Amino acid sequence: MTVDALQRFLVDSFPDAPPTAVVEELADWGVRVRQPITAENSRPGGTISGPSLMALADLTAWSAVLAEIGPVALSVTTSLHIDFLRRPDLVDVLAEGRLLKLGRRLAVISVSMCSEGSDAVLAQAQVTYSIPPAR
Amino acid sequence: MTVDALQRFLVDSFPDAPPTAVVEELADWGVRVRQPITAENSRPGGTISGPSLMALADLTAWSAVLAEIGPVALSVTTSLHIDFLRRPDLVDVLAEGRLLKLGRRLAVISVSMCSEGSDAVLAQAQVTYSIPPAR
Amino acid sequence: MTVDALQRFLVDSFPDAPPTAVVEELADWGVRVRQPITAENSRPGGTISGPSLMALADLTAWSAVLAEIGPVALSVTTSLHIDFLRRPDLVDVLAEGRLLKLGRRLAVISVSMCSEGSDAVLAQAQVTYSIPPAR
Amino acid sequence: MTVDALQRFLVDSFPDAPPTAVVEELADWGVRVRQPITAENSRPGGTISGPSLMALADLTAWSAVLAEIGPVALSVTTSLHIDFLRRPDLVDVLAEGRLLKLGRRLAVISVSMCSEGSDAVLAQAQVTYSIPPAR
Repeated sequence: MTVDALQRFLVDSFPDAPPTAVVEELADWGVRVRQPITAENSRPGGTISGPSLMALADLTAWSAVLAEIGPVALSVTTSLHIDFLRRPDLVDVLAEGRLLKLGRRLAVISVSMCSEGSDAVLAQAQVTYSIPPAR
Repeated sequence: MTVDALQRFLVDSFPDAPPTAVVEELADWGVRVRQPITAENSRPGGTISGPSLMALADLTAWSAVLAEIGPVALSVTTSLHIDFLRRPDLVDVLAEGRLLKLGRRLAVISVSMCSEGSDAVLAQAQVTYSIPPAR
Repeated sequence: MTVDALQRFLVDSFPDAPPTAVVEELADWGVRVRQPITAENSRPGGTISGPSLMALADLTAWSAVLAEIGPVALSVTTSLHIDFLRRPDLVDVLAEGRLLKLGRRLAVISVSMCSEGSDAVLAQAQVTYSIPPAR
Repeated sequence: MTVDALQRFLVDSFPDAPPTAVVEELADWGVRVRQPITAENSRPGGTISGPSLMALADLTAWSAVLAEIGPVALSVTTSLHIDFLRRPDLVDVLAEGRLLKLGRRLAVISVSMCSEGSDAVLAQAQVTYSIPPAR
């Protein structure tokens, strides 16, 4: 898939609540997704809410799988583990998703999130997706 | 804290995006939180989005901690692990949070989520919170 | 399976390093496994090593699956998450494994561990097993 | 710490069951630990047991922390998440541990494990350690 096709598929897949995240790059190593930060993602004290980062991790992992297997909406998350490492400022977050494994039945993806302009990892996730049998 | 005080604290803590979840019960065993399901929480195919369940797990765990230590907004999630077990229908979700540990520095909470009217667990999470030092 | 058949299967499955854990009960709610504590499981300071508890969580989860699907040695762990909650004394550990889900492809098991004679949970795990296709 | 000092500390810390793993490298990026594979680590079918890989992940994470903070035996694992990705052959496993965060109270470490001579990740873990207050 191309970046444009993937982005269109993500938006079309959630007609009632389209994600505000944007796919920026598809490459051999995986995918990079940008989460613009608005009041909706923020928490008092000027930081980003945990659920915003979890949603970003999930979307990035899904994108990494779709980039490989094509637009199969039925892939479902079976588990997600996330460690929150640093308190993020209200700056766009860049998430990089890498396929650790793409099996016939399961895909496992590592997702690292940084604030734009920083190399310090804010949060790191390991996400497992179940791949639909008929593909 | 009472159910009302906890609910008010949750809403006040997120002025820009107040949670739609509602604390229903505080008891010795823990807390129960209801997530009303709307188009915002749904995914095509008539199911609930993963991020909605993750946000509910986080909020329920936070509530379970606050119910014990009082309204300390600074508690922060340090990690969250969730297993998605069954495809939920578009029905309100009831989440039960139980403190597995409340230490001086860390709290660990188990969260089980079921559709209203069902005993089958949809998703189960283990969440760790860091407790602020000065309390 | 009966307790005896399950125990025999566990021992036969690891001829080179038979587990020292013992299945104590199979019931509707799940399985209970006892881990006798010896010098091998201990750490300086008079506590039990983390890997001993992880091995017990894995074995207990496996037993909970086998108790339902029968002696299928090919079930493999795909992920394990464990929170260590309290510093255990050098006392036998009782682990209870409960099936959260038994699907065609995946089983998810919750495992709680307590020291014998105590109700305080030492460690709690969520374990995922892949079920072999042909059964 | 040097490789030798760290290795000596690991062995001295477990007098009753010294680890068979060997620290091979300490570097800016983290630590590399080798786990020799013997009958003790094996499972029928010619593969390595899950608990062996979990113990290696834990030891590698601990080594990555000690390499930074010095020989503080009291650091304890608070949680470990591991995804098992590929069925390993009976070949030495090399584990690389990288500090994702070293805070005053918590350290989070990512551990990747490969068979010697291969780049395919067998298992990947995220491990959290509690750092003792007085150091």
